[in-house]
Order: sequence, then C-alpha cells, then structure tokens
Amino acid sequence: MQLTPSLARLVQELGRLPGIGEKTATRLAMFILNSDRSYAENLAEAIWAVKTETTLCQECFSLAEGDLCAVCRDPQRTEETLCVVEEPADQMAVERIHDFHGRYHVLHGVLAPLDGIGPEELTITPLLERLKRGHTQEVIVATNPTVEGEATALYLAKQIKPLGIRVSRIAHGIPMGGDVEYIDSVTLGRAIEGRRDM
Amino acid sequence: MQLTPSLARLVQELGRLPGIGEKTATRLAMFILNSDRSYAENLAEAIWAVKTETTLCQECFSLAEGDLCAVCRDPQRTEETLCVVEEPADQMAVERIHDFHGRYHVLHGVLAPLDGIGPEELTITPLLERLKRGHTQEVIVATNPTVEGEATALYLAKQIKPLGIRVSRIAHGIPMGGDVEYIDSVTLGRAIEGRRDM
Repeated sequence: MQLTPSLARLVQELGRLPGIGEKTATRLAMFILNSDRSYAENLAEAIWAVKTETTLCQECFSLAEGDLCAVCRDPQRTEETLCVVEEPADQMAVERIHDFHGRYHVLHGVLAPLDGIGPEELTITPLLERLKRGHTQEVIVATNPTVEGEATALYLAKQIKPLGIRVSRIAHGIPMGGDVEYIDSVTLGRAIEGRRDM
Repeated sequence: MQLTPSLARLVQELGRLPGIGEKTATRLAMFILNSDRSYAENLAEAIWAVKTETTLCQECFSLAEGDLCAVCRDPQRTEETLCVVEEPADQMAVERIHDFHGRYHVLHGVLAPLDGIGPEELTITPLLERLKRGHTQEVIVATNPTVEGEATALYLAKQIKPLGIRVSRIAHGIPMGGDVEYIDSVTLGRAIEGRRDM
C-alpha cells in the first residue's frame, strides 16, 4: 500500500478505535479524505470538544456539561429512587428503557481491592452524603453481575440500610429470548432462586 | 438517551462515516471520551492533517504530500508500463498485489456525459502529454467494468494507440473462488470470450 504519511497516520489512529480493523480504518480514512473539508473540520472539532467540554455532574457523577447533568436538572425526575450504576454507559442503558423516572448515581468503577480500588476511589462517600439529605426512599443497585459488581452491591447495602433506606438489586435470570437448555448454570440457579408467583 | 450535547454531536458526526450506525457511533464516542486526552488530540489532528497535507501528485495525480507521490519518486518503478485507474483507492488495490512495478495515472473519475463529465474533467490531457514524452510502451487500463468504465477505456485506447503505444485492458471473468453456476451471465460471457489456451 502506498499511503501518504498523513493517511497512514489517520489509518493508525482510527485503527485504535474498538472494532475498527485496518481495512475499515482505511475505508473511513479515504471517506474523510474525499469528503468536504467542513466534515473533517466538524469531526475533528467534535472529537476535541467531547474531551474538553464533558464534565461530571456534581450531584450524580454522570456525564454533564456544566455543574449538573440533564437528569439532575430535570424537575420531573425524582430523588426518591436512585439507581446506582458502575459507568455512564450503564446509565444510558437504563435510560433507554424509558421507564425509570428516578435519578442516578455513577460509581465510576467497582470495588476491586486487588487492583487497589477501595470505597474512596469510587463515589461512595458523596452517595452516602446525598442519601443523608433524606429525599431518597429506595436505592436500586444496578452494578454488573460480576464478582466485583456483587461485592460492591453488598458493600453498598451494608452502608445504606442503617440510614433506613430500602436497598434493592436488579434481578438476575434468563434474558428474554434466551434458552433454558443453553444458559449457564449460575444464571439458571439465580433464575430459579428469584422465581416469582404467577 | 441522555447524551451531553458534545457527545450527541460527536455521535452524529461519527454516524456520517460509511458503515457506522448510531449504536457503533455511540460506542466509538464513549471510547474516545474514556481514552487519554492525547488520543483524542492525535485523532483530531490526524483527521485535520489528512485534509490539509494531502496533495495530488503532479505526475500521476495520485495522493501525495508535496509534488510527487511515493511511486513517482521511486527510481525502481518504471515509466515503461502505466496503469490507468479511476481513483487513488484503485491504485492502492493494485499496489496490494505487490507484482506491478510500473507507474500509475489516476483519472479521478470516468467519462459520464450525462453528468457533464467529459475528457476535460478527468486527467486525460496530462496523461497524453506524459505519454508523448516517449518513455511508455504499454498502458494498462484498469477502470472498473461498468458502462462508464468501459466507455472510458475505449476512449483512452482511441487516443493512445495513434501514439504507437500498446493499450491493454484488465481481464474480466470469474473471480477466484467464484462459482460458474451462480455467476451473472455477462461475466460468464466475458470469461468464455477471454478464454486462454492451456
């Protein structure tokens, strides 16, 4: 391939994006090269802006621009129910179901003592302070169903329950469209354990 | 989805890339947001550089930085055989076979009278001037096997043959791994027409 140095560099940088191999990166680079100059300008600016303008919400530590995120600024959303998630992307996933009207708290990770991540490395202290204001009746812990996610959920429950606030955990079970025959036995065990009356 | 304005803008710009839908664009945007500030900087700069630093080779009109492209600067490459292609991406495809040691001439399009694209809109005049210097013995026309690509090949042959230069066309036929049963009949007709003695 006889790529010019600047094309080769762009292919290399694009190739570092997840799921973008060299062939796709080359196709994208050629598209950028052949598109309007304004598109390259807009794309480059948007990439730069997302790093410089994005802040963390002072209330829930989700992504924001300015002091508060869109959810915390929304008077329709209630502080009565807080959904605790690991990352902003998890919050977005919950938002996509369009059925949760409470607010969020983003931990920015999970407890992982072996990696040196204790409660102080997460946003647990601000969460407890937020709960002590007394506006919250229930905390839904939506950390991932991994060893660390479960341990973090247990730790949070132990910290929050003494405040007289209900703590719940999202259900684990067979995903919709899943197959009882092929599901792993840990999940199936959880699904039976969490069975509901019909 | 509660994307911040700058994230939403980046998702929109990334979504204009070929083969990148909203979901992939969101994943890429989150990756850029979570990556080092230096990566976002490098990527934005690379996108900008590819538009500002890329020029066209004054000899063959392929992509270059500066006056001449890498092939035209290479003394190992011979002017004896010129491969005429529609676009720089086609030149890259020929380079990938690592078996062509001649040089290129990039037309930047094909003749399409209905779209107002005549010989003057392409790089045909510079090609003929280049050939008149007398260093070239054969021109391989590697335009696409479309109506316009074939018409352009015929036009070029008519212009070049009077200069006493051999003009050849890349072969059309069944691609390697293709299936005689399922190939379209135009291609199969070409494959039989272009049969070679064994």
